This record gives sequence, C-alpha cells and structure tokens, in this order.
Amino acid sequence: MAQIPEDHLDLLERPLFAHLATVRPDGTPQVNPMWFVWDGTVLRFTHTNERQKFRNLAANPHVAVSIQDPDNPYRYLEVRGTVDEITPDPEGAFYRELAVRYGRDRGTPPRDAPARVILSVSISHSTWM
Amino acid sequence: MAQIPEDHLDLLERPLFAHLATVRPDGTPQVNPMWFVWDGTVLRFTHTNERQKFRNLAANPHVAVSIQDPDNPYRYLEVRGTVDEITPDPEGAFYRELAVRYGRDRGTPPRDAPARVILSVSISHSTWM
Repeated sequence: MAQIPEDHLDLLERPLFAHLATVRPDGTPQVNPMWFVWDGTVLRFTHTNERQKFRNLAANPHVAVSIQDPDNPYRYLEVRGTVDEITPDPEGAFYRELAVRYGRDRGTPPRDAPARVILSVSISHSTWM
Repeated sequence: MAQIPEDHLDLLERPLFAHLATVRPDGTPQVNPMWFVWDGTVLRFTHTNERQKFRNLAANPHVAVSIQDPDNPYRYLEVRGTVDEITPDPEGAFYRELAVRYGRDRGTPPRDAPARVILSVSISHSTWM
C-alpha cells in the first residue's frame, strides 16, 4: 500500500468528491466526480454495472483519483491503484451509507439498487501538493 | 466539435479547476487538477515538457477533463478530446495569462519558464449533469 502523508489524510476522510479516472477499451481516458469512502486501506465507490465506467473497469482495472481541498485548491492528493473487488449491492445499502455521508439520503434505496455495485480500490501510488 | 449545453458553458468560462486525465505509457490512468482557459473552441493548459503528463501525451494524446461547479457539486461537465497542438511558452507568457485568470500572478515569469508549453485540446465528446 502506498504511503499517504499524515497531513493529507483529511482529503480521504472528509466527504469530498473524487475525480475518478478510468481507461476505456479504446485506450482513451474518462473522468467523473464520484462519492467515496476510505477505511484506512481501501477506497470504495458506489456504481452500477450498467454504465461505461463499469465496462472500462472490466477491461482495465487501473484507476486514478484526484481529490482537491475545496478550502485550498492548491492542496490536493492523487492516488492510483486498481479495482480489486466488485461486490453486488442489490439493496443499495452501501449506496445509502455514502448518501448519508454526503448528506443526500432520501430514506429509500436508489431506484437502480438491483444494478448497484461496490468498487473497492487498493492504492498503489500517491502524489500530493 | 462536441456540443456543450449552453447552461453548462459557465463551467468552461469560470476560473475553475479541471481534473485532467491522461493515460500513461503502461495503459494506466493519471489525473490531476489543472488551470485551463477556453476560447470557445479549444481548451488550453499550461504544462512543462519535463513531467510525466507530458510523456503520457507524447505517447497517447487522448485526454478527459472533469469540471465541477464548486457552488453545486452535482452540476458538472466531462469533456473528452485530444491534444492537437503543443506550443512552446519559453517566456512563460501563457502561464502568466493563466496565473492572472486564477489570481496567482507574482509579476514575474515562472522559474521553469524555459520548459513551459501550452497544451491545446480540441473537444470531441461531452457529458454533463
């Protein structure tokens, strides 16, 4: 596991947005803002198995993530790693855990719950400013 | 050129941060926050010819960019395209244009001016929320 400097750990702990980059099957990149949670070892994202990013990850599990401090945009963290596990989340329980973390829980599972999955990313490299 | 919806053009016009994703020679992604400016057709970034991202782009000119509205993070734009032109900026003039745009001009060229380049990206696809 890559070292994250202690004075940048807050960027993984706070409910910030992670710009998650993946590589499409044609070798071109894709990047979108995502919710995430970090348990000290693994970054986890909620996703569905119906979207392009899921197809990208099936072909190429490598990801990169950029997280910027909204209070000081010149302070940021980039981590790179791989999706090591994709776990079904058919009740949307993990989705709701993230929705609560980001203050967006509606009290019900998401409508696309049957397609929901948890992407677990282990971090191999990190850079920061 | 890809269509950008009019009600999302402000995300290209405001001095926000673009999370620029590139693909490394080993096929893994990389993503970092960057300054940018948009002239209505082309996105331009300041960079140096000494860093990993430059080596990535020499091998694979495809990029993706994620820009989030800091006032409403659920409003964002992703654009994908290619670096069509890399222009030397040996006096750092373009760097300083961006530094002024982002309120960080120090009144002098950057120390790495001799290595500075302008990356010009034409947009082929866009998605938004």
